[in-house]
Amino acid sequence: MKKLSDLGERKAIRLISDILSNGDAAVGIGDDCAALEFKDEYLLISTDMISEKTHIPKSMTPWQIGWFIVAINLSDIAAKGGQPIGLVLSLGLPKDTSELFLKELMIGSRECAKKFNTSIIGGDTKENSDIVLSGTVFGLVKIDEFMSRKGGQPGDIVAVTGTLGKAAAGYQALIHDINNKEIQKGLLEPVPRLKEGISLAKTKIVTSCMDISDGLSSSLYQLQELNNIGFEIMKDKIPLSSKLLEIAKNNVNFDVYEQGLHFGGDYELLFTIPPKKFEKASNLIEKEGGRLTKIGRVIKGDEIVLIDNGFRKKLTNKGYEHFKKSDFIFD
Amino acid sequence: MKKLSDLGERKAIRLISDILSNGDAAVGIGDDCAALEFKDEYLLISTDMISEKTHIPKSMTPWQIGWFIVAINLSDIAAKGGQPIGLVLSLGLPKDTSELFLKELMIGSRECAKKFNTSIIGGDTKENSDIVLSGTVFGLVKIDEFMSRKGGQPGDIVAVTGTLGKAAAGYQALIHDINNKEIQKGLLEPVPRLKEGISLAKTKIVTSCMDISDGLSSSLYQLQELNNIGFEIMKDKIPLSSKLLEIAKNNVNFDVYEQGLHFGGDYELLFTIPPKKFEKASNLIEKEGGRLTKIGRVIKGDEIVLIDNGFRKKLTNKGYEHFKKSDFIFD
Repeated sequence: MKKLSDLGERKAIRLISDILSNGDAAVGIGDDCAALEFKDEYLLISTDMISEKTHIPKSMTPWQIGWFIVAINLSDIAAKGGQPIGLVLSLGLPKDTSELFLKELMIGSRECAKKFNTSIIGGDTKENSDIVLSGTVFGLVKIDEFMSRKGGQPGDIVAVTGTLGKAAAGYQALIHDINNKEIQKGLLEPVPRLKEGISLAKTKIVTSCMDISDGLSSSLYQLQELNNIGFEIMKDKIPLSSKLLEIAKNNVNFDVYEQGLHFGGDYELLFTIPPKKFEKASNLIEKEGGRLTKIGRVIKGDEIVLIDNGFRKKLTNKGYEHFKKSDFIFD
Repeated sequence: MKKLSDLGERKAIRLISDILSNGDAAVGIGDDCAALEFKDEYLLISTDMISEKTHIPKSMTPWQIGWFIVAINLSDIAAKGGQPIGLVLSLGLPKDTSELFLKELMIGSRECAKKFNTSIIGGDTKENSDIVLSGTVFGLVKIDEFMSRKGGQPGDIVAVTGTLGKAAAGYQALIHDINNKEIQKGLLEPVPRLKEGISLAKTKIVTSCMDISDGLSSSLYQLQELNNIGFEIMKDKIPLSSKLLEIAKNNVNFDVYEQGLHFGGDYELLFTIPPKKFEKASNLIEKEGGRLTKIGRVIKGDEIVLIDNGFRKKLTNKGYEHFKKSDFIFD
């Protein structure tokens, strides 16, 4: 009999969405958020679970765990251009969890929510054999500003917010015992791109958008499949994080592009936009202290090509997928 | 250092709500649902987690697990008088979970949602060491129909929907290997009282309401604490389930009232209502095929008294509380 480890997360999700009729939801299972039509707005809803085994390295503080579960949920709202209106948290905790741990966990959650002008409005606590946290976030976006995963077209520019490889740098610091808190934060305290998401949505010119929690290559393959498009990605345009370059230079030997292209956990936004509109969007985001980088373009067909020093090669899909490669992020 | 097993769930929740500022939520942490004001309605939100260790007995089928996580979430919407508009499910599953298990789980979830005219609109799947499911449900209720946990007053009648002890009967059947599927269903396939909740809410005469997932005595103590009131409960009025009486008569020796008063898992509604209005509400619910039973009244003070054959004694709080008594429901 087939196991989930044979299927992998993506096929498991397909199996689930085949079984579930999607009801009144305006946006299908498979996008970052579900969206329910509500007068002239969408109510955006998304849920994310993390567990000790796959997402919580030993050196993560309870404060950081709390921050993390809130941040990754908010990132899904950011990807659709939404304004968060609240979160609920379910905590599965072992009986011998300390009161202090619970306190720090809740303070971290609260501070992340507060930082992005929202709050935790409810939850559930249950006993469990190990730590499992599930967050559900709600947001609102005007229907005509909603950024779907669907819509990217040949000719569009493909771009990202911020820099890539911050989480990879943090991971390298952790596994090589490099006690640099700032670098570790790239993995342990991700920053959801809410401001950028909202600004991009207001321009109404983004053709598709998602967050790249599973890594750039994996996200590109998801957009490719959903939109029947291909991509041409320029390797030298990938905005690598300065932290990644720093740790690669000083401490550890690894291919920085490999990390920037494939490692998950950055929670930046990946989007497509008509070329004529890119500059306008970029200026807008820069004015607000953010950053957009054009990394390539949408092409016809279904190939994802990496242009590396003028040579064209296939960009392989090496992103993190649950069930299949549980040893990739934290082991 | 204090552990959660010393605190118990109720104190853990208090600790959490002390830390979280409640933001824009109209209803505080500690009610069945959070409620966000949304034009003339509340958007109700509730989340419930179940895990292999504490809520999923070995004989539960994957279909039943799926039904269960949806049903208990819907019950929280029922308790506030809301109409459900959708659910999201987070699945934490071991890598060696079979594809068939996932299918059956999703079919059970879908069928429970469908039965109550709603649907599952999104979710998350993650690898975990054992099975953990977290559901979040959304509903809508007109602001003036919302039934809070707060509001019960001395003089009110206290009443319940349906019968008590169905889950207890199912539990007894399971632990004594009594292969009666119908009786087991009382525990494994709870029925959220959505129709009753909506009808009660529309009368606008209910003064407080909650579901009794943790057992009647525990729920009464929660209302007592929240409203600074006492209760007088008439033991002979407790509407014991015929299944409970059947199994007690034929198979197992136990105190049926003990089970009806304290065992959790029935997902009936417990509410307070002015005495003059009770009959109207009762007739309404009966017309729709439901049942309301007056079990006592709200009194001044903070005592919860059980009237047993004319004698008054304190009703002890023996309901299920997580972290503290993990051995109570499924061991």
